[in-house]
Amino acid sequence: MQQPATNRQFVLESRPTGMPTEANFKLVETPIPALNEGEFLARALYLSVDPYMRGRISGMKSYAAPVEIGQVMVGGGVAEVVESKNAQFAPGDVVGIYMGWQEYAISKGAGVRKIDPSVAPVSTAEGVLGMTGLTAYFGLLDVCNPKAGETVVVSGAAGAVGSIVGQIAKIKGCRTVGIAGGDDKTAWICNDCGFDAAFNYKTTDNYSAKLKELCPNGIDIYFDNVGGPITDAVFGQLNVGARISICGQISQYNATKMETGPRLLGALIVARAKVQGFLVSDYAAKFGPALQEMGGWVHAGKIKYREDIVNGFENMPKAFIGLFGGENTGKRLVKVH
Amino acid sequence: MQQPATNRQFVLESRPTGMPTEANFKLVETPIPALNEGEFLARALYLSVDPYMRGRISGMKSYAAPVEIGQVMVGGGVAEVVESKNAQFAPGDVVGIYMGWQEYAISKGAGVRKIDPSVAPVSTAEGVLGMTGLTAYFGLLDVCNPKAGETVVVSGAAGAVGSIVGQIAKIKGCRTVGIAGGDDKTAWICNDCGFDAAFNYKTTDNYSAKLKELCPNGIDIYFDNVGGPITDAVFGQLNVGARISICGQISQYNATKMETGPRLLGALIVARAKVQGFLVSDYAAKFGPALQEMGGWVHAGKIKYREDIVNGFENMPKAFIGLFGGENTGKRLVKVH
Repeated sequence: MQQPATNRQFVLESRPTGMPTEANFKLVETPIPALNEGEFLARALYLSVDPYMRGRISGMKSYAAPVEIGQVMVGGGVAEVVESKNAQFAPGDVVGIYMGWQEYAISKGAGVRKIDPSVAPVSTAEGVLGMTGLTAYFGLLDVCNPKAGETVVVSGAAGAVGSIVGQIAKIKGCRTVGIAGGDDKTAWICNDCGFDAAFNYKTTDNYSAKLKELCPNGIDIYFDNVGGPITDAVFGQLNVGARISICGQISQYNATKMETGPRLLGALIVARAKVQGFLVSDYAAKFGPALQEMGGWVHAGKIKYREDIVNGFENMPKAFIGLFGGENTGKRLVKVH
Repeated sequence: MQQPATNRQFVLESRPTGMPTEANFKLVETPIPALNEGEFLARALYLSVDPYMRGRISGMKSYAAPVEIGQVMVGGGVAEVVESKNAQFAPGDVVGIYMGWQEYAISKGAGVRKIDPSVAPVSTAEGVLGMTGLTAYFGLLDVCNPKAGETVVVSGAAGAVGSIVGQIAKIKGCRTVGIAGGDDKTAWICNDCGFDAAFNYKTTDNYSAKLKELCPNGIDIYFDNVGGPITDAVFGQLNVGARISICGQISQYNATKMETGPRLLGALIVARAKVQGFLVSDYAAKFGPALQEMGGWVHAGKIKYREDIVNGFENMPKAFIGLFGGENTGKRLVKVH
C-alpha cells in the first residue's frame, strides 16, 4: 500500500466549560512525514472514546498531563501497520496503540501491543479485551476482592466497564445489582449479561429504597463509575467490611464548579469500609495474564460484550460527547477504516 | 471496705437535637444489689468521656446499639475492685472496665482487664495506654502503613487520639503536621509532642494554602478525627498512593441534618488513594502486643501524653459536652474517686 500523503487529526481548539461541544475540537489535515529508521506507520481501524478524556481537556491537575490547545486529542485505538521501517512490525500487523484522535500515526513501537485477529474481533482490543475490560478486571478483583455470596452493586452498569464488572462478579459467585440509565440498558445487563437485578435511575425516585429492595442483605462491594446521588445512596447501605472501587465519576466531569453532596465519610467508620481510587495503568505489569483470563471467559461465553460503533472519523467529537448523555450501551468505538 | 448502699448513675433522659445538653442526662441513685457468686463490685476511679458517645445517644443505626432512654450511659473506666466473689479479682485490684457512667459496677469479669499500677498511672489505661492510644496505634500503623520520609497530616491533633498519632508517626520517621483548634494546642503538639508543624484552624482562613505551605511535598497520609472543611482541604493535596484513616468526624456529630460539602471522590482516582474507616475494637486480638510497644514508647519518653482531668462524677455530662467545643487538650477523664 502506498503511503497516504495527508493525515486527518482532531486537535483541541478550546477547553470546554461544562459539557464539551464539537466546537472544542478542530479537524485539521496535516502531511504525513516520511518514516525514519525504526518507525512504522499505523492506520486507525477503531478509535476509542472514553469518559476519562474529559479530564484531559479540562486543564486541571490530574494523573496525566492535560492536552494543550492545538495538540492532537489523546486516546487509544486499534490500527493496522501500513508501512514499516521497524523489524518488529510488518505491514498487515494489527496493533493496539495509544495514537490519539487521528487517522494515521507514526510510532517506534513503545507501548504498542500486537493483536492476534484470530482470537477475537480486533475491536475488542479497545474494549472487553483492552483498557476497559482490564479496568473492570483490576478494579473489581484487585481493589474489591469479591467473595462468593457477597452483594456487588455497579453504577454505570451498562457501560464499557460496568457491564464487564457485573459479569466478573457473577463468575466469582456474587449477587450483582446494576444501576443504569435506561430500560433497554437494564434489560440488556439482566437478560444478556446475567446481572441478578438492575434499576433505571432515570425513572427511579428513591434510589435508597430501590437499593434496599434489590440488596436485602446490604452492599458488600460497590464499583463506582458515576458518583453523585447514586453513590450517596449506596454509601448509606454498606455492610461491615465493604469495599468501594472508585473507577469514574462521570456525573461530575462536566460540572462547572465543584458539586456538593452529603458528607459521607462517617458512614465508612460505621461500616469499617474501604474506598479506593485506582487507575488501570498502574496494573500494566499484570495485563498479560489478565487478558488471558478475560479471553478465556469471553470464549467460554461467560462474559458477553456489546460494542456501540459510530462510523466515520469525522464523528469523533460527537461520539465522545454522547458518552455524557449516556447514548452508549457497552463500549463505544469510532470505526475509522 | 464495706459495700456502699447506693450507686449514682447517669441515665439517658432524652436524645439530643444537635449539641447535647446537660438536660439530656439524669443523675439517679440506685441501690447496689448484693453480689452473686462469680461477681465483683468495682468503684470508678476515672471515667472516660469520648466523642464516639455522641453516636450512641443519637438513636441512629451505627456500629453499636444505641443507648436507650432510661439506660445508663455507656463508656469505659478505670476502677478499683472493692468486693469480690470472683476468684480472679481481689479487692484492691485496679481494672479497665466498660462500666458506663456510674460510680459502681458489678461485673463477672468478661472484657475486664487488670491494670498494673506500677507500670504507669492507672488513668493512662483509659488514655495513651488504653482505648484512645490503641486507636491511634492501629489507625495509623495498620490502616495507613507509614513509611519514613512521608508526610502525615493529623486533624484533631491535640486530642487524645491525634496527639498520639503524630508522635507514632514521628517514631516512624515521618514529617508530621497537626491541625488543632487553639494556639495553646498547636504549641503543645509542636513543642512537647514533636510535631514538625501545626496550624490553628480557628485563626486560619485558607486551609489549603496553609497545608501547601506546611506540606511542600504533598500529603501521603491523613489521619482524620474531624471531617468537614479541614478534610476537604486535605483531599485536594493527596500524593499518589495516599492513605486516609477515618477515625472520627467530630465536626459532624452534632449536625441536625446531614451537612453537605464538595464531592471529593474524584480526587481519590487522581491520587489512587485509599480511604478507610476503622474501629479500634476490631483489633482486640492485637491489643496485648500493641500496649506493650506503646508502653515502651511512653517509658522511653518517645510518646508524651496529657490528661485533662475534670473532678467529680456529677460533672460527667459537662465534661462530655465540652469535648465538642474543643475544651480538652489530650485525654479528658472524669476523676470519680
